[in-house]
Amino acid sequence: MLGLMQDAPLLISDLIEFAARHHANAEIVSRRVEGDMHRSTYGEAAARARKVANALDRLGLGFSDRVGTLAWNGYRHFELYFGVSGSGRVIHTLNPRLAPEQVVWIANHAEDKVLCFDMTFLPIVKAVWAKCPTVKHWIALCDAEALPADTGIPGLRSYEDWIADEPDTYAWPSFDERSASALCYTSGTTGNPKGVLYSHRSTILHAYGGALPDALSLSARDCILPVVPMFHVNAWGLPYMAAMTGAKLVFPGAALDGKSVHDLIESERVTMAAGVPTVWLMLLNHVKSNDLKFTTMRRTVIGGSACPPAMIRGFRDDYGVTVLHAWGMTEMSPLGTVCNLKLGQLAGSASEQLAVMLKQGRAVFGVEMKIVDPDGKELPWDGESSGDLLVKGPWIVSGYFKGEGGDPLVAGGWFPTGDVGTIDADGFLQITDRSKDVIKSGGEWISSIDVENIAMAHPAVAMAACIAVPHPKWDERPLLVVVKKPNAEVTREALLEHFEGKVAKWQVPDDVAFVDAIPLGATGKMQKNKLREQFRGHKLPTA
Amino acid sequence: MLGLMQDAPLLISDLIEFAARHHANAEIVSRRVEGDMHRSTYGEAAARARKVANALDRLGLGFSDRVGTLAWNGYRHFELYFGVSGSGRVIHTLNPRLAPEQVVWIANHAEDKVLCFDMTFLPIVKAVWAKCPTVKHWIALCDAEALPADTGIPGLRSYEDWIADEPDTYAWPSFDERSASALCYTSGTTGNPKGVLYSHRSTILHAYGGALPDALSLSARDCILPVVPMFHVNAWGLPYMAAMTGAKLVFPGAALDGKSVHDLIESERVTMAAGVPTVWLMLLNHVKSNDLKFTTMRRTVIGGSACPPAMIRGFRDDYGVTVLHAWGMTEMSPLGTVCNLKLGQLAGSASEQLAVMLKQGRAVFGVEMKIVDPDGKELPWDGESSGDLLVKGPWIVSGYFKGEGGDPLVAGGWFPTGDVGTIDADGFLQITDRSKDVIKSGGEWISSIDVENIAMAHPAVAMAACIAVPHPKWDERPLLVVVKKPNAEVTREALLEHFEGKVAKWQVPDDVAFVDAIPLGATGKMQKNKLREQFRGHKLPTA
Repeated sequence: MLGLMQDAPLLISDLIEFAARHHANAEIVSRRVEGDMHRSTYGEAAARARKVANALDRLGLGFSDRVGTLAWNGYRHFELYFGVSGSGRVIHTLNPRLAPEQVVWIANHAEDKVLCFDMTFLPIVKAVWAKCPTVKHWIALCDAEALPADTGIPGLRSYEDWIADEPDTYAWPSFDERSASALCYTSGTTGNPKGVLYSHRSTILHAYGGALPDALSLSARDCILPVVPMFHVNAWGLPYMAAMTGAKLVFPGAALDGKSVHDLIESERVTMAAGVPTVWLMLLNHVKSNDLKFTTMRRTVIGGSACPPAMIRGFRDDYGVTVLHAWGMTEMSPLGTVCNLKLGQLAGSASEQLAVMLKQGRAVFGVEMKIVDPDGKELPWDGESSGDLLVKGPWIVSGYFKGEGGDPLVAGGWFPTGDVGTIDADGFLQITDRSKDVIKSGGEWISSIDVENIAMAHPAVAMAACIAVPHPKWDERPLLVVVKKPNAEVTREALLEHFEGKVAKWQVPDDVAFVDAIPLGATGKMQKNKLREQFRGHKLPTA
Repeated sequence: MLGLMQDAPLLISDLIEFAARHHANAEIVSRRVEGDMHRSTYGEAAARARKVANALDRLGLGFSDRVGTLAWNGYRHFELYFGVSGSGRVIHTLNPRLAPEQVVWIANHAEDKVLCFDMTFLPIVKAVWAKCPTVKHWIALCDAEALPADTGIPGLRSYEDWIADEPDTYAWPSFDERSASALCYTSGTTGNPKGVLYSHRSTILHAYGGALPDALSLSARDCILPVVPMFHVNAWGLPYMAAMTGAKLVFPGAALDGKSVHDLIESERVTMAAGVPTVWLMLLNHVKSNDLKFTTMRRTVIGGSACPPAMIRGFRDDYGVTVLHAWGMTEMSPLGTVCNLKLGQLAGSASEQLAVMLKQGRAVFGVEMKIVDPDGKELPWDGESSGDLLVKGPWIVSGYFKGEGGDPLVAGGWFPTGDVGTIDADGFLQITDRSKDVIKSGGEWISSIDVENIAMAHPAVAMAACIAVPHPKWDERPLLVVVKKPNAEVTREALLEHFEGKVAKWQVPDDVAFVDAIPLGATGKMQKNKLREQFRGHKLPTA
């Protein structure tokens, strides 16, 4: 017997209409590519999203057709999120940090019909347009006047010109909530990129879960700064959560340096910012160097890769900002866990609380997780047993776009995350490594993240990567690759001494290699596969 | 094209398993009918809910069969919530404050197969069992030893005996998330009671929405005291929200007097309590009379009927407790709106903020609302235009059980709430009256709630109801019915003078009637229909 509740599908168009109705005057502030600041509201954003929907109708785009974007975080990108998905099409956020040939491959695989891009990325578009036969319409996210006269791109129009004459009313269609809403490709280290296809249902459920007090805790009293890009797992869903809660939104555009981000946080009175550790490192360095502070920001969500403990401590002790350590994946929409204390932990000492806050946190309701041994046998939640992490739930992938990339699920419908971690009795997950980054030394595992965190706590270290180097006796041994801070000095010996007493002797790296830079991927993560290649022949002193 | 996200139904069994896995040691504390305190955890509750599921299988109960309860808020009732719904049956919470003949009518209409009751209600069960032919199993929520030898109720068993030997493991079934999960009858003032049939989907979505920071803001750092009964719209969904967030739960049992509730709040360090104004009045009076305070409670949700401004002010100014004014209905699961400030209002003065907090608040995402004039034309959100309030959304009723009670929806799928109110530009709803309680005087409407709020602010008034009395010239004129505080004195004239300057002259009641008590319904609301009957012939001095 079915219940007698209204059969209302969960649709993304409802988010923007809710925001427009209940938070018409809540602000959306964007630092534009043009350099100036732009101020808008949910009321205006909804009206312009409806114009986008009308404009897509006029282009003849069908249900589920893909609209690509190559864009920074800004109000126009936000309008596209809702205008495209709300009208039944799929927004496909391309990562502009990829090489042009990768952009071509992905746009063709996605069969994008329209591609909207920030003027920053005009050079990419010039390089790729001729190789993207499915793209019939190129839209530059700018005013008509800002459009260069002769780009060579056929039929190029400015976004403002494109939507100018469209009505700002639109009858959003109703359809199956499981319909595709957004597409994001993962940058796998091997093989072709794989498309993760989100649905309206998964997006709304993820927004509910992500806005909860034990997740990102978002309300109409917040001012959110998503520094994490909108081309990176939909900026962790923050645009949807913001519309759901009516929070003020601040978009940083292309300016992700420490000064620009800090200026924006202060001038717009941001209460919550979200980003990856590498960008936050620039922010912290700027604030430290210039003896600044955070007046209104009280918490920041850090994810994308493990946050060094030194950063969590620094934000807390020096600036009174709570770092919410989070963990997720493109295949998970992305939210899996967020670290927030429990009732019983509130009475603990500052150092006891910090020990908890260094972990990646607890699962949001909607995410089931387990850790298993190499035979797939479930391991206990004792905070000690380390195993492969598997997840399951309504905002987790069931397959990749077009079925290409293989079946991502194993027995029981679980998705293997590729991460290795422990879970304690209170459900706090601690990622100890990516399974492919673990260093397998003499039958024992060494966590590359543990080693990196210790190195990062050294005052002379700006960035550190720990990788496995083949070893004749132990199979693999750890090598520490280090970027020093500007004007800082430290020797190999001093760095290795720094590990004494912090880990077991056999976990101390065998050698240190100082480099000018560590290669970062398109989403800001360290590309350890490149480092492993580079140092494959490295001669360890102990070997 | 469908998205490629996992097809995981939203089921109530997932809530209790999530709580057991992630919050196994979070406490569930109950004041028992027996008088003592009982301490349990989510881990134990889940194990016992699985025993309940096994016990229901053993009784041969089918999918969607109803299991009735006549019970206070306590751990056994909580276990039934999950064991019954999780295993695919429907939990039907009967209101023990109804007259026995009403209980009989409802149990028969619901066709309850099992009925579980607290020993407090043994007299009711003795009076009704012979008239409830569908009920095959009577379960007393107590230990085997507490069961009287000779009740006359055939096959009566104690709950503990019933589940004792059942396994504490259970393979929860998976099914359509729209399946019925719980049944609650509304006590209409006319006609037969109508059954509202919740679904798994509506319950989970409502829990997500209700736990958001702008709704009840619940987390694993909370200790929740639901004083609102579990037989009254599932205690506003708090048991589900608590399991979703891992909050500590405290159940008050039968002891709802001011002292018992305050003792519990203090001894268990409650952070959030929820109840109706009449119960909260007893609590405030007790605290005031005995010069007590609230050490840990920082917010309290008040709903069920409009909260007098004096109470909101009292909690805030005297005790530092924020009253979250909420509005909803049985037909709405029940949450419609909750009053929380917006970013722009945080800078306002205390009195400006209070003016906002007196309203019923903003809609949670998932609830659409509008106000309409008598012709059904939508009215503007200007904080002035008052109209009939209509709502829509996935946790709002689409029909009544067995189709009896008529089609509750009007054109466009909207549910008319029977409330009259205004909505301001920020989306804050203010209920001005129940449409049937509005006093229609000379073509103008007088809000009975406004009049009552002013009366309640008088120091000698314990309770006040404003009702319409027929009038030869004006059609209707307001009569104020008042219960004085113990040992307090006030005259008719002094009370009417108290209105001067607070409302327009024509809105001041024509007369005051002092009574010993105002009749309250089974859910604690004033029964104005009974008062109107009683005072139909009342001679107004101005008539």
